[in-house]
Amino acid sequence: MHITAVDTPCLLVDIDALEANIAYLADFAQRAGVRLRPHAKSHKSADIAARQLAQGAVGLCCQTVSEAEAMVHAGVRDVLVSNEVVAPRMIDRLAALAGDARVIVCADDADNVAALEAAAARFATRLDLLVEMDVGAGRCGLAPGEPACKLARSIAACTNLRFAGLQAYHGPAQHIRDHAERRAAIDAVVGLTRDTVERLAREGLTCEIVAGAGTGSFDMEAASGVYNELQCGSYVFLDADYARVAATNGAGLPFRHSLFVLARVISKTRAGRAVCDAGLKSHSVDSGLPTVFDRPGVTYTGASDEHGQLDDPRDTLTLGDTLRLVPGHCDPTVNMHDWLVGFRGDRVVALWPVTARGMSL
Amino acid sequence: MHITAVDTPCLLVDIDALEANIAYLADFAQRAGVRLRPHAKSHKSADIAARQLAQGAVGLCCQTVSEAEAMVHAGVRDVLVSNEVVAPRMIDRLAALAGDARVIVCADDADNVAALEAAAARFATRLDLLVEMDVGAGRCGLAPGEPACKLARSIAACTNLRFAGLQAYHGPAQHIRDHAERRAAIDAVVGLTRDTVERLAREGLTCEIVAGAGTGSFDMEAASGVYNELQCGSYVFLDADYARVAATNGAGLPFRHSLFVLARVISKTRAGRAVCDAGLKSHSVDSGLPTVFDRPGVTYTGASDEHGQLDDPRDTLTLGDTLRLVPGHCDPTVNMHDWLVGFRGDRVVALWPVTARGMSL
Repeated sequence: MHITAVDTPCLLVDIDALEANIAYLADFAQRAGVRLRPHAKSHKSADIAARQLAQGAVGLCCQTVSEAEAMVHAGVRDVLVSNEVVAPRMIDRLAALAGDARVIVCADDADNVAALEAAAARFATRLDLLVEMDVGAGRCGLAPGEPACKLARSIAACTNLRFAGLQAYHGPAQHIRDHAERRAAIDAVVGLTRDTVERLAREGLTCEIVAGAGTGSFDMEAASGVYNELQCGSYVFLDADYARVAATNGAGLPFRHSLFVLARVISKTRAGRAVCDAGLKSHSVDSGLPTVFDRPGVTYTGASDEHGQLDDPRDTLTLGDTLRLVPGHCDPTVNMHDWLVGFRGDRVVALWPVTARGMSL
Repeated sequence: MHITAVDTPCLLVDIDALEANIAYLADFAQRAGVRLRPHAKSHKSADIAARQLAQGAVGLCCQTVSEAEAMVHAGVRDVLVSNEVVAPRMIDRLAALAGDARVIVCADDADNVAALEAAAARFATRLDLLVEMDVGAGRCGLAPGEPACKLARSIAACTNLRFAGLQAYHGPAQHIRDHAERRAAIDAVVGLTRDTVERLAREGLTCEIVAGAGTGSFDMEAASGVYNELQCGSYVFLDADYARVAATNGAGLPFRHSLFVLARVISKTRAGRAVCDAGLKSHSVDSGLPTVFDRPGVTYTGASDEHGQLDDPRDTLTLGDTLRLVPGHCDPTVNMHDWLVGFRGDRVVALWPVTARGMSL
């Protein structure tokens, strides 16, 4: 089946580009001597996870308990929930899941640690804990230094929990366009993390895992000598926002666009304009509008629920034409769809369910 | 079950408020002497649709063929796809659906009309067509006047299609905050629509349906003497964006918030701040961030994929607390969720599937 024959709007994955992205980062991590634990919150797909694991990934990151359950049920044996789990029922589900896989989770609160300890005891399982630090993102996490070390000590004193290290991820820094500015932000992150790792070492607490890094900065954490696990997620797809993030030499990141929303022109009544069928329910605009792939001169200028506005000054589009949009932000876009339609060249070759779609619990 | 015991993040519906909103508009339409055909793209729920139909709605609007199929399969017998259907396979599905229900669809192109005619012939069904006009939104639709009338004539000449009237909806005008400005925009819309209706009448073409209007302007179209069908959708929920739209006297629209994202505080490590578990995968920020319901002083200040940042200057929130967010934009928010958890007071009383979730084809 030709890709343009697929019903629209739908999510297409260029498997050649996807595999190249997976191979690039797997090879990079191996050469850098760091582990790779890709983030499944970007793709939510057991099929893509299997490809990452086959290329040497040590396990997966997930962002929610239900997402981790979906991946473990699909056969993954080592998952890090890179987030705090606070609701009592979710803590129980997490502790139960640790009967089927190695389960690592983040914490930034002593009462939460006590609740995790009690649940692990009830389910007779073990949870590995990372202390999450706020290294500049201003989101979850304790301050580096003593606040983080204090919680680490309380975890180390538990019976059913194991202190496994630090989570030190700076999300906003991933998206800083300029390479030098991004490096300055990550240098500060690395400094804070290094200080805390060393402080813990002086207390006799070893960080098996020092985790963080994303698609925008992975080379920096990998070179730090402090981080030993990378958590990149978006690299498998390279969305339009990450395509605006520059590498050292001003060129883009070393990944290819592999994720597209296939859209169709459904109205063409005015010169220089057209309307397509992919709007806010087919891709997320939180990080900007999608770009149009391989259609020079055509621009996506506005989204409503089920419509996209296109500027087409040379009137190259006609009613029924399909076009590929590169979503502004891959993670929430994938989460809207039930299927990933995989293609090579211009032929459909695979249909992958979005295994953990909507699993936000 | 108390509503705060529901797993988070999830979508809550205050059924009392929902029923009040449905009853208000049903009563309004009856008194104004216009038909009400609520838009199902907002709720995508067969349960809510059934309540609207029980209150006198003449049918439903849907925005896609698969959404219309879902509603017809749930028992709805009169649907308007208020959009162009262009893909050949979707045209076939639409023509087939007309065997199970009255199906109305919009068109703005002569070749598309010919394709619809051929499909209706193949399936031995009849499709009712509305000519869509661009009355200022700059999206789909032909120019009012002769371009619209020309297409109406070509529809009227078809064998398996029936010319049923005009679609004249101005989406952006719904959201103009100031009442006088909104009225001026809708006055222009009404003028264009009136001219075309009269022109068609002079040609002997009657518009059974003159359709448009939304939650922000329904009183204006209803009073126009031209429109006879209202297509409001968001009124059932009243999202945060529509709550900023003012009625005549500066007060808000006559609806209550009935849709909420139940969120939970999962991190509280800094004074004046907290982090909750409802981010970009739980609500759409395209029309602004959510507002926080019934928690004075607490503000939602930023969203990432699975997190929401909260300002809480008086430190009223503690870890594990739940709070209700009013989504910025209800339609794409509902489309992210599989279930609507209905409550009255503070008790869960219903669990409704989002029947047409993800049905964007």
